[in-house]
Amino acid sequence: MAGLRSIEFGDLVRVIKKNIILEGIVMPATEFTSSDVIILKLSNGYNVGVSLKDAKIEVLKKSYVSVGAEPLQARTCIEGKGSMKLSLISTGGTIVSKVEYETGAVKPALTAQDLIELAPEFLDKIAELEVVELFRLLSEDLTPSHWSRIADEVAKKVETGVGGVIVAHGTDTMSYTAAALAFALRNLPCPVMLVGAQRSSDRPSTDSVLNLRACPIVALRAPFGEVVVVMHGHTSDSYVLVHRGVKVRKMHTSRRDAFQSINDTPLARVDFPEGKFTLINKRYLPRSKPEFFTAQTKFSDKVSLIKAFPGFDCEIIDYLVDKGYEGIVIEGTGLGHIRGECVESVKRACEEGVIIVMTSQTLFGRVNMKVYTNGRKLILAGVIPGSDMLPEAAYAKLSWLLANVPDRNEVKRLMTRNLVNEINEVHDMSLYPRWYHG
Amino acid sequence: MAGLRSIEFGDLVRVIKKNIILEGIVMPATEFTSSDVIILKLSNGYNVGVSLKDAKIEVLKKSYVSVGAEPLQARTCIEGKGSMKLSLISTGGTIVSKVEYETGAVKPALTAQDLIELAPEFLDKIAELEVVELFRLLSEDLTPSHWSRIADEVAKKVETGVGGVIVAHGTDTMSYTAAALAFALRNLPCPVMLVGAQRSSDRPSTDSVLNLRACPIVALRAPFGEVVVVMHGHTSDSYVLVHRGVKVRKMHTSRRDAFQSINDTPLARVDFPEGKFTLINKRYLPRSKPEFFTAQTKFSDKVSLIKAFPGFDCEIIDYLVDKGYEGIVIEGTGLGHIRGECVESVKRACEEGVIIVMTSQTLFGRVNMKVYTNGRKLILAGVIPGSDMLPEAAYAKLSWLLANVPDRNEVKRLMTRNLVNEINEVHDMSLYPRWYHG
Repeated sequence: MAGLRSIEFGDLVRVIKKNIILEGIVMPATEFTSSDVIILKLSNGYNVGVSLKDAKIEVLKKSYVSVGAEPLQARTCIEGKGSMKLSLISTGGTIVSKVEYETGAVKPALTAQDLIELAPEFLDKIAELEVVELFRLLSEDLTPSHWSRIADEVAKKVETGVGGVIVAHGTDTMSYTAAALAFALRNLPCPVMLVGAQRSSDRPSTDSVLNLRACPIVALRAPFGEVVVVMHGHTSDSYVLVHRGVKVRKMHTSRRDAFQSINDTPLARVDFPEGKFTLINKRYLPRSKPEFFTAQTKFSDKVSLIKAFPGFDCEIIDYLVDKGYEGIVIEGTGLGHIRGECVESVKRACEEGVIIVMTSQTLFGRVNMKVYTNGRKLILAGVIPGSDMLPEAAYAKLSWLLANVPDRNEVKRLMTRNLVNEINEVHDMSLYPRWYHG
Repeated sequence: MAGLRSIEFGDLVRVIKKNIILEGIVMPATEFTSSDVIILKLSNGYNVGVSLKDAKIEVLKKSYVSVGAEPLQARTCIEGKGSMKLSLISTGGTIVSKVEYETGAVKPALTAQDLIELAPEFLDKIAELEVVELFRLLSEDLTPSHWSRIADEVAKKVETGVGGVIVAHGTDTMSYTAAALAFALRNLPCPVMLVGAQRSSDRPSTDSVLNLRACPIVALRAPFGEVVVVMHGHTSDSYVLVHRGVKVRKMHTSRRDAFQSINDTPLARVDFPEGKFTLINKRYLPRSKPEFFTAQTKFSDKVSLIKAFPGFDCEIIDYLVDKGYEGIVIEGTGLGHIRGECVESVKRACEEGVIIVMTSQTLFGRVNMKVYTNGRKLILAGVIPGSDMLPEAAYAKLSWLLANVPDRNEVKRLMTRNLVNEINEVHDMSLYPRWYHG
């Protein structure tokens, strides 16, 4: 029997106890773990706590998961047992993070290969996984120029004919990047799946394993060629949801099911443990023929997103115009309003060629600027109503249009047109969650 | 029988048809009303469509509801049949609006008295209703200085010993005003109820009647002395919810049940048609003794609310500091983040005495800036974590503290302390709506 002290996080071990034999990767202890219990990640992805009382423990492989040990790798290839080729592009985020034990903070430090080793059954369905480590950034540090680099990298992979591209990404701005990629990468022959975690991958409670496991299933089964977010649909490990990238939002700081579709139903769900794929939403962009795939990966960084509030300072708009901003998305109140006093600043901005788009901070519903006087004045001043687009999606769309469409009138026209299901032509009033008051 | 053409919107009529006799106020036709049907608002508040085929119709009173006919009135008193004194302060909004038939837009034009006449059973429970028309503004035009005037007016009414104060208000920024009043008016001996409508009061589909009807019931039955929002809990006229003013948000552009409590359960519900009051949430501020009531009604207008997004321009923070802003609430990403690049601007702002508070754009959950490196850096720079406060509530709180608490360190301390249930000491992870994917 190996001495308990010699067993370290990341070791692959076998525990033999009465009639039970368990094999798995040793996970770090939590504050709730008693001293004679170890947490094992089993090959099916689940974590179990095992008391070591009267148990025999063998180390099968030291440092099976070598956390943070390897340098940032440009490219790796991992072979699997299935028949599909997949790509995984890692940008950083909690999914590739571990707890920095000195400070208690979480930092991106796992290699993408570590990730796969935490979810080994991931490889059952694929022949070859090419792993690219693009950045190791937390997503709050990403900018539109990072969107361009991610889009370029995804486009390269798509062009090699893979069955799907997985983008490991921080959850903070995942919905912004998902929307950006959806506008940049068109007529996709396969799904592009953003995946992340709300709990770092070195924690027993991590959600990264299940989210990752869902990706090859989506790549195999999904009829759609869209940019999607693949994240827990429930706090338990029961199912993963596949959300349309332009219609999803992080709605909770910490729950595993933080991602939710807004003004839309999720495209699909994957139920576990069976890994069953179910299409929920029949309105999707089908997989395109590879020759129709296009990538326009530039984004303008001269677009701002501002929120209206009582006493909103109209001079912020003047300031942005003077700084050379090309576009402003307003997260207005209600049906799409800001203070009447701001109409003059808005008008001046529009006259100087700045494109101003109105969305709503209510998130649900649809902008309608024809109902109230202030809305009408804003339309006359030149504001483009953002329909039922999320502020984040409108922001990514405007940033993409301004970088790729030279004619400003055409940019304005396209802001009101549905390009990739970011706008529902007909709004379904029932797409509103049921709240806890029954 | 009166000629159909002589019947106008606002007339009180009697329709006699076979064995049915209906009395009610004539409402404007909708685009779906066929030409021989009129919509009647009955005395119980419900609207019915009545075919005039083979019917006799009598006008009981011409212009029973005199829409927009009267000038803005400073003060009116209306007598009822009950025993409680109530005050109604009208600030404007859809609830006192009607459709401008020339343009199709909606404008505040009804007097508060018109309102009461649309909901006559409102008077059953009250002895005397004093009506004050403070403004006729749509709520997107309100500023912190309007909050002060509303708070002053409410305080005056509370001091006269009324059983409750109703504030008719536009829905766009209702949650901002509700939060502001909650900080300004403390140890309330009665509820202060913000009420509004998603459909203007001259429409058959208006929600104003039921919302108004719930107010005297809340004033009579509620054990709490809090500032609350009283709005539909369902799209049908089945129940009205009473939300805590610091924990509520407009979550849909147009649904009647747009207002929802976030990180909290509603305080109570009122079921119709019986008008049954049910307390839902036992955590409330009980009605105080009148002598303990205090009003501190000033607000700083030098507070800004900004939203983080990829590529957020750190210079916005410098700009606000240079313009003399005293406080900034950031609607950060995830657990409370902005780009690491902004730490320098944030640090400079804090050093110059500007108070920066971090909240989350996920809305649900709680800010925790100790988990990730950028969060820790922001705390070291001087940012105050906003716990589970809504960005709107944190904004109103900071605006109130900066105007009433001279010592900046005390302002910072109070931002992290729970004053009026705007912060839950223990976060209930289950306070998350059930989404439509089951």
